[in-house]
Amino acid sequence: MNAEIIAIGSEMLTPERVDTNSLFLTGELNNLGIEVVAKHVVGDDRERLTTTIRRSLADVKFLLISGGLGPTEDDVTRDAVAAALGRPQIFHADISDGIEERFRRMKRVMPEINKRQAMVIEGAEVLSNDRGTAPGQWIVDDDSVVMILPGPPYELKSMFTRECLPRLRAMVPPMVIRTQVYRISGMSESDLDQTIAPIYKPYENPATTVLAHNGDLQVHLRARCETEAEALALLAEVGGRIEEALGDRIYARDSSTLEEIVGRKLKERGQTLAVAESATGGGLAERITSVPGSSAYFVGGFVTYATRLKHELLGVPTEILEQYGAVSAHTAEAMAIGTREKTGADWAVSITGNAGPTSDGPQSPVGAVYIGIAGPNGAETFHRVWPSSDRPRVRAFAGQMALDMLNRALG
Amino acid sequence: MNAEIIAIGSEMLTPERVDTNSLFLTGELNNLGIEVVAKHVVGDDRERLTTTIRRSLADVKFLLISGGLGPTEDDVTRDAVAAALGRPQIFHADISDGIEERFRRMKRVMPEINKRQAMVIEGAEVLSNDRGTAPGQWIVDDDSVVMILPGPPYELKSMFTRECLPRLRAMVPPMVIRTQVYRISGMSESDLDQTIAPIYKPYENPATTVLAHNGDLQVHLRARCETEAEALALLAEVGGRIEEALGDRIYARDSSTLEEIVGRKLKERGQTLAVAESATGGGLAERITSVPGSSAYFVGGFVTYATRLKHELLGVPTEILEQYGAVSAHTAEAMAIGTREKTGADWAVSITGNAGPTSDGPQSPVGAVYIGIAGPNGAETFHRVWPSSDRPRVRAFAGQMALDMLNRALG
Repeated sequence: MNAEIIAIGSEMLTPERVDTNSLFLTGELNNLGIEVVAKHVVGDDRERLTTTIRRSLADVKFLLISGGLGPTEDDVTRDAVAAALGRPQIFHADISDGIEERFRRMKRVMPEINKRQAMVIEGAEVLSNDRGTAPGQWIVDDDSVVMILPGPPYELKSMFTRECLPRLRAMVPPMVIRTQVYRISGMSESDLDQTIAPIYKPYENPATTVLAHNGDLQVHLRARCETEAEALALLAEVGGRIEEALGDRIYARDSSTLEEIVGRKLKERGQTLAVAESATGGGLAERITSVPGSSAYFVGGFVTYATRLKHELLGVPTEILEQYGAVSAHTAEAMAIGTREKTGADWAVSITGNAGPTSDGPQSPVGAVYIGIAGPNGAETFHRVWPSSDRPRVRAFAGQMALDMLNRALG
Repeated sequence: MNAEIIAIGSEMLTPERVDTNSLFLTGELNNLGIEVVAKHVVGDDRERLTTTIRRSLADVKFLLISGGLGPTEDDVTRDAVAAALGRPQIFHADISDGIEERFRRMKRVMPEINKRQAMVIEGAEVLSNDRGTAPGQWIVDDDSVVMILPGPPYELKSMFTRECLPRLRAMVPPMVIRTQVYRISGMSESDLDQTIAPIYKPYENPATTVLAHNGDLQVHLRARCETEAEALALLAEVGGRIEEALGDRIYARDSSTLEEIVGRKLKERGQTLAVAESATGGGLAERITSVPGSSAYFVGGFVTYATRLKHELLGVPTEILEQYGAVSAHTAEAMAIGTREKTGADWAVSITGNAGPTSDGPQSPVGAVYIGIAGPNGAETFHRVWPSSDRPRVRAFAGQMALDMLNRALG
């Protein structure tokens, strides 16, 4: 069973805006076994929209239309659907009363123009909007269904979930969806895909997606079957081979982030963490503290951007800074050890490097990063040079590597 | 003159991916005075794509198609365009040789299948690809032009700029585009729009866009005229009234960020900056150091997440922490003063607050943030409570406010 999605609004035909409602709707439809075969964005143009709706209805069973339900002349969706279906619209006094009541509650008077929102296409079921004034509509036409939904994502999500999902579920054969997520660190996206493509490519079910973001990789498996047992068996079959191929490069078997996993391990052990950053300039601490409740194990950190502060705040010996430079394994190690001492934390992670765009000399090429980890059993350092002069990327990769190394050190 | 854009690829019909090529193409087309009236995403489905192309060609003068030019059976674009136009494809040996040469340079042998990429629709002009193997095509058909472009953004941008732009410029009346950007802080998006909508709404030219992201607001004006003088006069007319209405809430008249502006001011004065953060957990330092060359004025910072570190590292008196709490104006002020002393920086900014999701008691409701600024002439504090329990939002807003306050303090 196929669907198309039409997003309406001239603002989505500018260079600044994309339609994101269709991502949510696609996910929901896929879960029901309905495939989205095309998406369209059309401006506030009644005639063009009418043509687009007519064409889509000829092609698919389900047509989802979002936006263009406001009270003004620009809001052409109701009229265009009515024209495409060749049906009249009927004024619903109860909807108009409801909108008026909503305005009253906000101590305002409903402008006359809002009565347009009470027009309903003949034969449509009204879909209630619990987060805004514009109701939606569900229209069965021959073999097809047209859903008219509001544009604001906050309104659309609620209306689709409450009003459309139950109706759709009654129309499609029941299917069970089970997903398996792997999160992977310490390899490149192309290495990952080369390793696992031979495993997942032969399978249409489960469907496999590889996502990459700043050195953090995810593999999503999604099995759709008639029974849960079948779906789980499929996931175990493909997932098992992926786990075997990737080994300890998999750091999570759910959607947990590295900072969440590290936090969980520290909490379990009752241990604390502190950081000292140079190249990442606060980004590592920012990631760690993005986890709600991180104050249970994260005590704090230093951004020792100026070299002298590595000495003054962390006690990195001047001789090390002079002999090996601020971007070196010795400095990273001394930063981690110093941070542990100054904060009293059980673990300390340090990052020093050169995120670019300019090199500070042969000792510190752009992309060079050193990570230090100091813990109850001593300190270790890690080194990597990224072949990139893209400052935000080098910084993000360095933070990812530091968390990966800490996670491995925590065991 | 109107255009439509078709993006091809089943991966853009999943819940994870959006087409972004169309944003770049829309911006370029708009600059030429060509309006994008519809966008489509179609999967790797030859028949559906052929239908979509035929329909679009009936509607607009320019049709831009991206993606689906790879060497495999899934790459259906060439065949679909040929079918929609009713033209044969012809093998171009020179293109095939060029692709083969490209493989040789990478020490690889061209797979036989890549010869598909050397098929050209009869009558098409070949668009060279300097960043990949798939060439594009420029096809004039009756009154319309079809452009076939590669899917990878890196390839598409180069090809469009080098090959399509000059051809398009020769087809459209010359127009001059001039833009004016305002960056605004210290007010909400709805307050901003309420203030300036009466000014810009009456004008179709210049076109006005309001963008909002975590408390950082931008207004873009874009004037399109036959002469530069006309465009600049339009911008001055509308921009002047916007500047008058917003006053010092405008912090930049170009695309500079707050962290860049603060950095420039510090550099000009030869002064330095340090920070101490609690609620934002490193995010403020991360933003400041995201600017290349920030080491010229940013010396470093503290993430004093645990309350005791506010005392131990920054010297915030225990009495203040006990009497007023860690989330208080007194603590923010003492943090800023302590940071200035410990680092020797000319300026210090502190943030303490509760980013949620849970309240630490009546003294520190979720969303409460205190900012401290210490400089050569003393210290001041600022306070705000955001009505949000959205942790990332509160943190981003707090960082924005801290930079805004520092910028005002720098004068």
